[in-house]
Amino acid sequence: MRERLHPVLDGVCERDWETEPLERLEPMRFAVIGVGWFTRGRALPALEASEVCEPSVVVTSSEAKAERVASEVDGDARGITYDQFHEGVAADAYDAVYVVTPNALHLEYVETAADFGKHVLCEKPMERDSARAATLRETCADAGVELMVAYRMHTEPTVRRARELIEAGVVGEPMEVRGTMSQRLLDRINADPDQWRLDPELAGGGALFDIGLYPLNTARFLLDADPVAVTGRTRSSHDAFDEVDETVSFTVEFPDDVYASCFASHNARQSSCIYVTGTEGRVGVEPAFFQDQQRTLRVSRGGGRASVDVTAVDQMLEEFDYFAHQVRTGGPLYADGSHGLVDMHAMEAVYEADERGRWVDVE
Amino acid sequence: MRERLHPVLDGVCERDWETEPLERLEPMRFAVIGVGWFTRGRALPALEASEVCEPSVVVTSSEAKAERVASEVDGDARGITYDQFHEGVAADAYDAVYVVTPNALHLEYVETAADFGKHVLCEKPMERDSARAATLRETCADAGVELMVAYRMHTEPTVRRARELIEAGVVGEPMEVRGTMSQRLLDRINADPDQWRLDPELAGGGALFDIGLYPLNTARFLLDADPVAVTGRTRSSHDAFDEVDETVSFTVEFPDDVYASCFASHNARQSSCIYVTGTEGRVGVEPAFFQDQQRTLRVSRGGGRASVDVTAVDQMLEEFDYFAHQVRTGGPLYADGSHGLVDMHAMEAVYEADERGRWVDVE
Repeated sequence: MRERLHPVLDGVCERDWETEPLERLEPMRFAVIGVGWFTRGRALPALEASEVCEPSVVVTSSEAKAERVASEVDGDARGITYDQFHEGVAADAYDAVYVVTPNALHLEYVETAADFGKHVLCEKPMERDSARAATLRETCADAGVELMVAYRMHTEPTVRRARELIEAGVVGEPMEVRGTMSQRLLDRINADPDQWRLDPELAGGGALFDIGLYPLNTARFLLDADPVAVTGRTRSSHDAFDEVDETVSFTVEFPDDVYASCFASHNARQSSCIYVTGTEGRVGVEPAFFQDQQRTLRVSRGGGRASVDVTAVDQMLEEFDYFAHQVRTGGPLYADGSHGLVDMHAMEAVYEADERGRWVDVE
Repeated sequence: MRERLHPVLDGVCERDWETEPLERLEPMRFAVIGVGWFTRGRALPALEASEVCEPSVVVTSSEAKAERVASEVDGDARGITYDQFHEGVAADAYDAVYVVTPNALHLEYVETAADFGKHVLCEKPMERDSARAATLRETCADAGVELMVAYRMHTEPTVRRARELIEAGVVGEPMEVRGTMSQRLLDRINADPDQWRLDPELAGGGALFDIGLYPLNTARFLLDADPVAVTGRTRSSHDAFDEVDETVSFTVEFPDDVYASCFASHNARQSSCIYVTGTEGRVGVEPAFFQDQQRTLRVSRGGGRASVDVTAVDQMLEEFDYFAHQVRTGGPLYADGSHGLVDMHAMEAVYEADERGRWVDVE
């Protein structure tokens, strides 16, 4: 990678983290907790496709639904209810849990998983607030189970390549980051006005928590730095978003006077990108954050601009395989709970900044 | 244009403002006040190329330089000094002035031009501060001469097409704007550490005044709206910028909760873009602000994304011709002094917001 572009083409989708062939590792059997469109459409197919992971247990609200979904999964998956999960039913059948419930329910399933000594892959944001997220982290630490927060950008090859380029000095000193993620939630994903994403008790926040997290966290990942302070404004124009933010514009101060300006909306046309501009060059990924899209890695430096189109990988497969690989080989997990907690603090600071009309330091 | 893309290709560079053929208009003879690289490389060649404008007088510091530059101009241009200009030398030889001096000197030349009844095309920002800019505006109004502030984006065809698309509803309701402009001033434009752009007395501000104005003003132009409030942060890492901002990140609130996040730097790799994302689509121009670059108009809507590459026009020729056309036909001038003054207030509010660490309303 070092300051030359052509290896990007050769190895653009390489799994630089894969030090041990997956087929040599002990399989990682997952209990998937929470069955919505994302689980059925994304998570279960990725677990089925994995060489090292298996979807062995499906956990949802009713026995009937659990059994129906389990029966659709390749192999011998079991379907159990949330109550059964807490009771320890099928605890021998999984090594790890993938928690993909509404945000405010993460903690209770993680607590049970930790009690049974199961490793945890927890969807982001970690919880509905930083206090519960901190408890979640401590719960796993106290039980000695591994915890990873499921930021799929960390194992998206294009984003990893962008990070390597920045680390190798291709942009010089980073000066600013811009990131956006927007979609028409009600049109495109889910028209249900009672969905949990619109409920502050279950979600903790609106567009910021759900998708603003992508530019925020990816800026951190690309810069390898954490927020110092934030400011931002939220707003909602649609009745469905009267309790959570529909749209947010926020700016994150990083060390060395690097600023990231971010935008997220559940009521704007789909867009997603992230760019880092430095003294010497610019690196970006666009589209960046939605799944199944061909990404373009864009690099400007000197007199040149290069665009590398990258075939979409199965991001959930990358993430599950990474998690299994790291746990089985004893490697570090990125992102761990402390990393996820920083985002919780940063996002809460954005809401505080919005209320106070000023910059707010991030704890 | 109305909601269809193909006329963009047919008429992408059309001068929609040109209601009278230029050759039928009385020529507009310009005194060009201030001779730097921009005047020699951009302004004078454009005036030479124009069908309706002529560079008839060149005004600079010394007789020798004035005569040398005038002798290089096509036609019978006269070269005079600043003092001679104030004395009225060659006042019969020009109908309008193009003021392209350091910002803090605009007012004095505009005052003289107004005294002689000459129309004024004044470079942006209008002056070094809003008080002087307001005086400049009043001076022209009192003298009954026309005043236009030289925002070349207003006559850049790609930007005009973007504005038409937005006005026609292609993006739905605008939700956010992103704009950047950066360059390595000391590397690329002018390595002189004594240049006026680094002197707060002459410039009034740094990157914000010089180039941050582009995303700010173009956001206004595309949205057809004026700023409500701003927040921002400035910083300088290079010694040359110890008195003016080298880099600025700022956010502009527009009516209806539309926010524009803007970045400008004199120490980052060249970049320039502007994008408007709305409920239904996205329209942008990239690269947007530097001259002589092929621009790409980018439009997303429904399931489609279109990119229209637009050959670079001579932006100064577009601007001079527009000014002459509007003055000669009695049409309105966009941007007038009141429009320019809004930017002065907005930029001063960014500096205040930086000092106070909060949002500041724009007067």
